[in-house]
Amino acid sequence: MKNNKVVLAFSGGLDTSYCAKYLSKTKGLAVYSALVNTGGFTPEELQLIEERAYALGVQQHQLLEKTEEFYEHILKYLIFGNVLRNNTYPLSVSAERIYQAIALAKYAKEIGANYLAHGSTGAGNDQVRFDLIFQLIAPDIEIITPIRDQQLSRKQEIDFLAENGLALDWKKAQYSINKGLWGTSVGGAETLTSHGALPEEAYPSPLQKTEAEKMTLEFKQGELSALNGKAMKPVEIIQHLEQMSNKFAIGRDIHVGDTIIGIKGRVGFEAAAPSIIIKAHHTLEKHTLSKWQLHWKEQLANWYGMFIHEAQYFDPVMRDIETFLQNSQKHVSGKVSIALHPYRFNILGIESPHDLMTSDFGAYGEENKNWSGEDVKGFTRILANSMHIFKHVNKDLS
Amino acid sequence: MKNNKVVLAFSGGLDTSYCAKYLSKTKGLAVYSALVNTGGFTPEELQLIEERAYALGVQQHQLLEKTEEFYEHILKYLIFGNVLRNNTYPLSVSAERIYQAIALAKYAKEIGANYLAHGSTGAGNDQVRFDLIFQLIAPDIEIITPIRDQQLSRKQEIDFLAENGLALDWKKAQYSINKGLWGTSVGGAETLTSHGALPEEAYPSPLQKTEAEKMTLEFKQGELSALNGKAMKPVEIIQHLEQMSNKFAIGRDIHVGDTIIGIKGRVGFEAAAPSIIIKAHHTLEKHTLSKWQLHWKEQLANWYGMFIHEAQYFDPVMRDIETFLQNSQKHVSGKVSIALHPYRFNILGIESPHDLMTSDFGAYGEENKNWSGEDVKGFTRILANSMHIFKHVNKDLS
Amino acid sequence: MKNNKVVLAFSGGLDTSYCAKYLSKTKGLAVYSALVNTGGFTPEELQLIEERAYALGVQQHQLLEKTEEFYEHILKYLIFGNVLRNNTYPLSVSAERIYQAIALAKYAKEIGANYLAHGSTGAGNDQVRFDLIFQLIAPDIEIITPIRDQQLSRKQEIDFLAENGLALDWKKAQYSINKGLWGTSVGGAETLTSHGALPEEAYPSPLQKTEAEKMTLEFKQGELSALNGKAMKPVEIIQHLEQMSNKFAIGRDIHVGDTIIGIKGRVGFEAAAPSIIIKAHHTLEKHTLSKWQLHWKEQLANWYGMFIHEAQYFDPVMRDIETFLQNSQKHVSGKVSIALHPYRFNILGIESPHDLMTSDFGAYGEENKNWSGEDVKGFTRILANSMHIFKHVNKDLS
Amino acid sequence: MKNNKVVLAFSGGLDTSYCAKYLSKTKGLAVYSALVNTGGFTPEELQLIEERAYALGVQQHQLLEKTEEFYEHILKYLIFGNVLRNNTYPLSVSAERIYQAIALAKYAKEIGANYLAHGSTGAGNDQVRFDLIFQLIAPDIEIITPIRDQQLSRKQEIDFLAENGLALDWKKAQYSINKGLWGTSVGGAETLTSHGALPEEAYPSPLQKTEAEKMTLEFKQGELSALNGKAMKPVEIIQHLEQMSNKFAIGRDIHVGDTIIGIKGRVGFEAAAPSIIIKAHHTLEKHTLSKWQLHWKEQLANWYGMFIHEAQYFDPVMRDIETFLQNSQKHVSGKVSIALHPYRFNILGIESPHDLMTSDFGAYGEENKNWSGEDVKGFTRILANSMHIFKHVNKDLS
Repeated sequence: MKNNKVVLAFSGGLDTSYCAKYLSKTKGLAVYSALVNTGGFTPEELQLIEERAYALGVQQHQLLEKTEEFYEHILKYLIFGNVLRNNTYPLSVSAERIYQAIALAKYAKEIGANYLAHGSTGAGNDQVRFDLIFQLIAPDIEIITPIRDQQLSRKQEIDFLAENGLALDWKKAQYSINKGLWGTSVGGAETLTSHGALPEEAYPSPLQKTEAEKMTLEFKQGELSALNGKAMKPVEIIQHLEQMSNKFAIGRDIHVGDTIIGIKGRVGFEAAAPSIIIKAHHTLEKHTLSKWQLHWKEQLANWYGMFIHEAQYFDPVMRDIETFLQNSQKHVSGKVSIALHPYRFNILGIESPHDLMTSDFGAYGEENKNWSGEDVKGFTRILANSMHIFKHVNKDLS
Repeated sequence: MKNNKVVLAFSGGLDTSYCAKYLSKTKGLAVYSALVNTGGFTPEELQLIEERAYALGVQQHQLLEKTEEFYEHILKYLIFGNVLRNNTYPLSVSAERIYQAIALAKYAKEIGANYLAHGSTGAGNDQVRFDLIFQLIAPDIEIITPIRDQQLSRKQEIDFLAENGLALDWKKAQYSINKGLWGTSVGGAETLTSHGALPEEAYPSPLQKTEAEKMTLEFKQGELSALNGKAMKPVEIIQHLEQMSNKFAIGRDIHVGDTIIGIKGRVGFEAAAPSIIIKAHHTLEKHTLSKWQLHWKEQLANWYGMFIHEAQYFDPVMRDIETFLQNSQKHVSGKVSIALHPYRFNILGIESPHDLMTSDFGAYGEENKNWSGEDVKGFTRILANSMHIFKHVNKDLS
Repeated sequence: MKNNKVVLAFSGGLDTSYCAKYLSKTKGLAVYSALVNTGGFTPEELQLIEERAYALGVQQHQLLEKTEEFYEHILKYLIFGNVLRNNTYPLSVSAERIYQAIALAKYAKEIGANYLAHGSTGAGNDQVRFDLIFQLIAPDIEIITPIRDQQLSRKQEIDFLAENGLALDWKKAQYSINKGLWGTSVGGAETLTSHGALPEEAYPSPLQKTEAEKMTLEFKQGELSALNGKAMKPVEIIQHLEQMSNKFAIGRDIHVGDTIIGIKGRVGFEAAAPSIIIKAHHTLEKHTLSKWQLHWKEQLANWYGMFIHEAQYFDPVMRDIETFLQNSQKHVSGKVSIALHPYRFNILGIESPHDLMTSDFGAYGEENKNWSGEDVKGFTRILANSMHIFKHVNKDLS
Repeated sequence: MKNNKVVLAFSGGLDTSYCAKYLSKTKGLAVYSALVNTGGFTPEELQLIEERAYALGVQQHQLLEKTEEFYEHILKYLIFGNVLRNNTYPLSVSAERIYQAIALAKYAKEIGANYLAHGSTGAGNDQVRFDLIFQLIAPDIEIITPIRDQQLSRKQEIDFLAENGLALDWKKAQYSINKGLWGTSVGGAETLTSHGALPEEAYPSPLQKTEAEKMTLEFKQGELSALNGKAMKPVEIIQHLEQMSNKFAIGRDIHVGDTIIGIKGRVGFEAAAPSIIIKAHHTLEKHTLSKWQLHWKEQLANWYGMFIHEAQYFDPVMRDIETFLQNSQKHVSGKVSIALHPYRFNILGIESPHDLMTSDFGAYGEENKNWSGEDVKGFTRILANSMHIFKHVNKDLS
């Protein structure tokens, strides 16, 4: 016989608050609300969410702290792969959602729950991420999705909560903000159509500094190892860098992308640290990897990013790609100098013992030490061979 | 019997000036200097170069005006393909070099020259581009490369010219600047090592405007059709946009790339118009193309860019890729709004009759009109099938 | 108000016979049975199917003859692309199913039907192909799928037909055979498990000839143009070749593949003409295309084949790939000599005015006419450069 | 000061015999002939080659036995990757040449030689393989290539040897045979042109058996582990299988490929064991890997094969690809049943604990256990979404 335990993915917002009350009151379930922190919440926010949960009468509220695990299992590879969806979007929230779903499903199994609930609508990516991961990790647990199934209006949700003793001031924020370790997504009226940009005030981190600032990031085999010369763990560096660079309002853009369900979606984002880290890492790679490592890494990493985005994290090809990416980082060590400016940054240069732009073999355009002009003539003649033959045979160059 | 006509790729700089004099004086050849303009020269510059050529005693100097042809045969496809080498470099000079080599070889055949000369060193990409294209187009014409073969110092070149009556003040510019239609490359002491950036003054277009400016670009089947509502030819738009956006010092960066000859090379560039056009075009594509069109376009276009960069323009696969890119542009029409700021720009939004982000079918994260929550549940269940089976069979998710 | 016309995809087998009767009798609809011939049926078979349809009391039976259209819109590109799913399976039936779905949906719109019915089960690929294509072409027509929805046993279907006046001897064939222009699929008890092969008698075309036979195929820009020197249309050549080569029992194998719905499926097939044509065409391409044409064609064509197989024929990327494939065939003209043997064939050689293996430039391993040993030394030195630098910098070759 | 030791890659044929005598007699060097066995030689052949070496007066002859190392460092990955160049050629000789070059260069360093010599011509791939690998491993050793440099006729070589006391009967074999562990290449008059096939007698292994024979191969994590139930090391299995299957004259074909130097080359080959092993391994993978593992493995493995073929074994991307391929083999374990027939073979089926074609989740086309028809309807509706929108917006399906 089924028990009545339900684990609810809870953020404290209107939708999941409605779910909490609906599941306990209407469905008679024992609600175990849970929040997975992958780095997007401050202690104060976590505290408020817990209070909200208990105010809604949940049986128990659980914080699942998974920032380090998220870094180790997913984020690390996004950095190795310089993953920007469509060369734009660092998967700011989607990657974290995958890991949150995993943690929730494992928690539900752990406490022997019979139900797992999430508050996603029927129009976005998150429903697929939650459903798919829940099914895989916990195939015997039934999934409940009140928001998707009931398609209520905000007013109906607010009224229901008020009728059930939680008469809060649920004023709709003008912009919906989703903050994570790897950036913040921003939605609003502007992102529902194609023609307009988000206004300055929609972005959560206002410009605070206008004087340029120089800094350094160090990498050791592809992983962040120091910020401005101070050794820290990768997650700490990301968090420190986020604070530093948010003062410059860096890393804002709007992404238009293909959702899992086949429609186009437009989302603003603010991702200062991810933007800087990825460009710094990529620059270091351009100095330390071979042309064909860069070529293949890009293809595999783009696929990896797409599958993370689209909830296919557990396809076994993902583990194969991870080994490729990991192996490619063997020599990606060194220091990257960066200048932060209002709304932008630039990479100044790198230093690495593995820098392939060594002057021992020649300098681009200046000097050839290890080969002769005659060698290049021979090289070019052989390189031209196939095109030469093509032209000869077909009496035409195309 | 061979005649003594030599066509010399002439830019008016020290190296090609040396070549002009060396070929006529030392080798006794009739020098036909030629300059191919693919959009990088002003009328004044062209005039000065012609004067220099005659001062060096060339038989004849020829300007080959090929800007439109360059756009039509190469640049158009770089825009269709959003080509940025390693996601950074718009091939600012390399693409033009290919078309210049083609024009020079054709001109040499036309005037019945027996020799073709260029002033490239043995350490760069250009030698391969010139040699390879010359060989293919004009296999019977002998290639002469005095700079690569003699490896003279600047002083030796200057002295030789002085001894031969051209005692100019050849003071070495601190930065070597190569200007083209599709951006300007900048080399200097800083780009010979890895750790430092180019200083502000190395870039030819200083910041002149600090107040943000809004503008629009229109595309018709992937090609630029209007700037701020004014219809113009694509080349004109590029040139106008370059002037407008250079005032904001937009599009500067440093690229580290793999040269054709296997070494890493570092080069600064300033490419305001290309940066803006490519991001504008790409944004329009993200609204009008399918996910898989974007996916395959990117792969083919990156290859196309690499082969342009590496002088393999005449591999027949390039023609196949061009048809793919052309066909993909069928619906890439619309208007892109852009804001220019000092040192940066951002895309505000797009308007297009082919915008796939229509609200008729649903709005991302908000509303599903054309499908139900039940559909997504079914979708997710089927999408999970293969991973489900994998886990069931292997008792493990990885 | 809806009319009661239903177009039923009708093959005359038990499942679609059940559907015909069920739709008219139980549902009270006016059944318009239709069969799309893409080359898999003989006139006699078509006649029998029509008789069966009228015996089942359909309002009207329609043969939609689409062999030429199928070739022109799909099959041609599968040949251009040498498409073998997982290097094995020529998409013998799946490609035709796509075109059949298109023809059925168009026919239903034409006659103003309100319903479209097919007899696919819930466990295969065809349901997705029919549903998806029907929805796209005829979004206003409701889809009915009695077999998938009712999940009846064979006996239940037979009994229902008998009760309704069609008491035929529906003995289950030991092997289910699906014949098409591009090969025949064969299913049986053996293909439901992994360990065994289909027996000789499961394949519809028994070995009739044991003496080897030589033949030639000619291609003109990638399309079949003559068989044994006799000019014919491509479809005729395929049909003639199928007859000739089936006598040798050529082209049998078993394919294990990933279905659209995520499970693995195993299917036997007999595809003599496709196997021979693809290898002949591919050999001609290896002589006439550049290395990188072969490389990119393969990638795009594999994707094309996968999307055909998986019902995504209408993704616009498919049109882009088609233009690439078409353009690549410019020089793929010539004659291929083939020897047919029992159960196998081999390609003897080719003759083509576009053969790039011309002896004018040198002969592999024998003679170098257009380059010198010194050229190759230079080539190799430059080719080694990047690896040389890597070793020098990292003190290691890996 | 340089010593006079030269290591000569020696096969006992006319070219390398000429080199041995030329290097000692004409150049006055101390010749250390060396032969790297990667599995292509019998003990008798090795003995004869050694005798020939001493007859030519070499200082010392060294057999470098590297079969196991070749398997471990290269061949294993060719099997993991099912590598067939252009879906045809198992790189029968080229892969071994790479490892031979490595072993020779290491040996030369070991004995402190100042020179390395090989007998390749200027028209083939081997010159690049030897030159490139020698340079990388032993950059301080000078490479001598008498055959390429002197371009002598056979008669000149024979006369030189006769004048120097080695008057052998060097009758030219009608077909040049290059035997290796991974197959045998066959060249002859027919392969110098495009139109004809090699005659039966050109292939070294005549048909000896006509009665079909069943056999099994077992794999453990992608590596061969047993033949007909008998556990053996992979190399032993390859050798046993080669003997068994050569009696059936299996695995013959002609490959036309792009050489490193840009010309097309045509070569016959006989590769019974490689053909069987690759198809068996691939079949096992089709049962045990996900669709996307198969997809990416194929792309990476094709690249790997191309770079092996083209001497770029030491590009660091090759090590990254190896980790991917190795990781992908985690579950590729099981038994493959095979039937050998004259000139052909077929895979009967497989058994594996990791077979994803389990019936627990449904049977293709027959039964759906883990999902419903409604799920597939939902799946299809979502899958169609993007195409639906495309059609709606563009009023057209293409």
